[in-house]
Amino acid sequence: MTTSSSDNLGLYTDYYELSMAQGYFLADKKDDQTVFDYFFRTNPFGGGFTVFAGLSDLLNAITEFKYPPESLHYLSKLGFQDDFLSYLSEFNFKGSIFSVREGELVFPNEPILRVEGSIIEAQLIETLLLNILNFQSLIATKALRLKMACREKTFADFGLRRAHGAGGIQASKAAITGGASSTSNVLAGYLYDLPVSGTMAHSWVQSFETELTAFREYARINHANTILLVDTYDTLKSGVSNAIVVAKELAASGIKMSGIRLDSGDLAYLSKKARKMLDDEGLNYVRIFASNQLNEYVISSLQEQYAPIDGFGIGTELITGKPDGALDGVYKLALCNDLPRMKISENIEKMTFPGPKTLYRFYDAEGNFFRDGILLTNEDPENCEYIYNSAYPDKWTRVAGLKKECLSTKVFDQVLTNSFMPSAIECNEYLMSRVALLPSEHKRFIMPHIYKVGVSKNLLNLRDNLKNKISNE
Amino acid sequence: MTTSSSDNLGLYTDYYELSMAQGYFLADKKDDQTVFDYFFRTNPFGGGFTVFAGLSDLLNAITEFKYPPESLHYLSKLGFQDDFLSYLSEFNFKGSIFSVREGELVFPNEPILRVEGSIIEAQLIETLLLNILNFQSLIATKALRLKMACREKTFADFGLRRAHGAGGIQASKAAITGGASSTSNVLAGYLYDLPVSGTMAHSWVQSFETELTAFREYARINHANTILLVDTYDTLKSGVSNAIVVAKELAASGIKMSGIRLDSGDLAYLSKKARKMLDDEGLNYVRIFASNQLNEYVISSLQEQYAPIDGFGIGTELITGKPDGALDGVYKLALCNDLPRMKISENIEKMTFPGPKTLYRFYDAEGNFFRDGILLTNEDPENCEYIYNSAYPDKWTRVAGLKKECLSTKVFDQVLTNSFMPSAIECNEYLMSRVALLPSEHKRFIMPHIYKVGVSKNLLNLRDNLKNKISNE
Repeated sequence: MTTSSSDNLGLYTDYYELSMAQGYFLADKKDDQTVFDYFFRTNPFGGGFTVFAGLSDLLNAITEFKYPPESLHYLSKLGFQDDFLSYLSEFNFKGSIFSVREGELVFPNEPILRVEGSIIEAQLIETLLLNILNFQSLIATKALRLKMACREKTFADFGLRRAHGAGGIQASKAAITGGASSTSNVLAGYLYDLPVSGTMAHSWVQSFETELTAFREYARINHANTILLVDTYDTLKSGVSNAIVVAKELAASGIKMSGIRLDSGDLAYLSKKARKMLDDEGLNYVRIFASNQLNEYVISSLQEQYAPIDGFGIGTELITGKPDGALDGVYKLALCNDLPRMKISENIEKMTFPGPKTLYRFYDAEGNFFRDGILLTNEDPENCEYIYNSAYPDKWTRVAGLKKECLSTKVFDQVLTNSFMPSAIECNEYLMSRVALLPSEHKRFIMPHIYKVGVSKNLLNLRDNLKNKISNE
Repeated sequence: MTTSSSDNLGLYTDYYELSMAQGYFLADKKDDQTVFDYFFRTNPFGGGFTVFAGLSDLLNAITEFKYPPESLHYLSKLGFQDDFLSYLSEFNFKGSIFSVREGELVFPNEPILRVEGSIIEAQLIETLLLNILNFQSLIATKALRLKMACREKTFADFGLRRAHGAGGIQASKAAITGGASSTSNVLAGYLYDLPVSGTMAHSWVQSFETELTAFREYARINHANTILLVDTYDTLKSGVSNAIVVAKELAASGIKMSGIRLDSGDLAYLSKKARKMLDDEGLNYVRIFASNQLNEYVISSLQEQYAPIDGFGIGTELITGKPDGALDGVYKLALCNDLPRMKISENIEKMTFPGPKTLYRFYDAEGNFFRDGILLTNEDPENCEYIYNSAYPDKWTRVAGLKKECLSTKVFDQVLTNSFMPSAIECNEYLMSRVALLPSEHKRFIMPHIYKVGVSKNLLNLRDNLKNKISNE
């Protein structure tokens, strides 16, 4: 399956990265030292937060980002020059990467990850970096929203069939990072050691002469792990009734059947009817699972209606990150040869912050997240008394004396620092510990309160001075 | 990069496919002969057509769908039984697949692809099949819509950085199938022999002391292939003015600079101003490219405003298939051991058609597409005088005597039939020949006329009789 390959991972890039790299090489700029920032401009889904994910996959991929002979042969056919290809044949990312932890809650315009290295190495990994981080952060954020809607209930990722090709493997990992309790995706389970789960399809039921025979055979093989899909013909008249017959037959052998799954119709109505039918037969332990075009709003509505559903299976909406489909993360040059750089652009929101920066989180007196602050790396945070709104600098917050935490850590230092490769489940544990510290007004789905991110006075001055200098030129 | 792997492709499936497969194995049903249909229910993007894509990737993947020892070891850890794992160790898809051609225009509820095989082999490939076909068909359809908006102009895929992880590789292929003239994605270019292209990034401009120096250096290296990104600081005052200086310097050496790229601001306004500035300097051959959140509607609007843009770069909207993000294709059992099967479901639109079916296309007197008809495979199409609306059978169309074409061809017959593996560019050529035959009322973006798909009388009767039989049981 020629969908992804670690053999030619140096080609996992946009063409212009390679043509610019050749340009830097030929312009004798290949050793220019640079700093690039990864950040995004808007929280996805109209929400108040974003879950940072994809870091460990990115770091692994960077160690494999090379140009074996087949890659060089291909680039030669595209017209790249021999001396540049000779340089690429030795290519190996040897820069530094500073990042927040995978599973961290992050916010718009924060320098989440910083790459320091030669202009060629920092530039060549841009596309790979954006491809991995933007997507996994999108899906992890969606998964956290779903988990928030589920509250104490659980949900499983059922999305592989609607996922974007091989991206579905990474999506299932990010779903677990964000809050799914398991995935149906067996390859992702194998590659990333994720919990896998599943029930049955309509085809199982259809392949037997009757629904009751199909249910009996499934239960005979799967015992207590039996979850029966009840909507192949008629949910209440046929499916739930037959499931009750089988559950009682299992009970007669001392086995407690796991559950039933609803996959069409009005899930609030059907779950209440099915719950009553089960309870009337003494089957109160048989759980009800539900699937079919679910998202955080539908689940919230089911919860408000007290639908007696114990767990949810979520496909398309989770795995494609609907409705946004993408996080708008970008990667911008902030420093080149010790000189701060910025982009001004026609659109004011596309202006960038120059210089190497570090991200701090300030806590309120209750120990909850209060503000994030962006400082220059050479600033002593102890001297940072105020942080400023970068668009309206007359808005500021005093942060002197508050408990604070530096969120940026070195995770790649010429080689990979293995201590920053937690599993998806470990990332989710960290995430949930952070969610507990985010005030609830930032968590609501509708018009959340904006979590404030400020910049230091020094950074503000650097930005304004550089902007004026460029504008005057 | 552990994102996809041909080594354990048999795990590229949902967990329930494997647990059902074990069930069939243990219920002594493993050799039950089945027919499954792939179809979708709704054209994406509110459009009037869908482009079928992904077939060659699917067929290749099926040949690699196996269970090597690492896979079996993992499944054993998950609790699968030894005798079933022993069966899987020899697994190899040996069924038949009938399909329409990649690049064909298809419509809701049509049996686009039919799998015939043992219930286990047909079931195990379900998730892989849906994952590949749903996604590539979605992206190819989006690309065709973009191409329709571009008319005689071209567009390039710039989407890898916003794509869904490794799915971006397949997306770039599907983009070419649908109508992109090139892609920025170098790995996809390498793997699928696609045309690649690119310009420059803001970081190139920022990395030099001045924009003019950056432009000059780029032109010195890239000569006529120079396309200058003009919005890093100020599009008209700085970017276009500096591009004109460089274009005239190149012209003095007899070199015609390729173009400039606008990437922010109002593209209609800026392209007109830039065109005039270039023309006033005798640079009418310098083309204008544009990018920044484009889709088919924005491009149509730019065309209506006569924006003098020569080519478009399209990222997020193309590569994520916005706003839909997924095609709702499904895979349903139609026959088991010679008995037709169907699903009734709570939702009437989720009812399926039983029996093995073939797809025909009927032409009108002008040689354009007129109707599609679904017949049972054992029907002689010469005897099919009428086709019927399956929801309202009193609506019918006479098709006797019309020119017709069978769209379903055998593409896998125990082994892969290599003649059905055209390149993405060949698929696009076929697609464009088909688009020319689709009446224009089905092509418009807003409320397109529905292309009618009917069923034969025999199929209608089979469906209704089986539905009544199931409902009476």
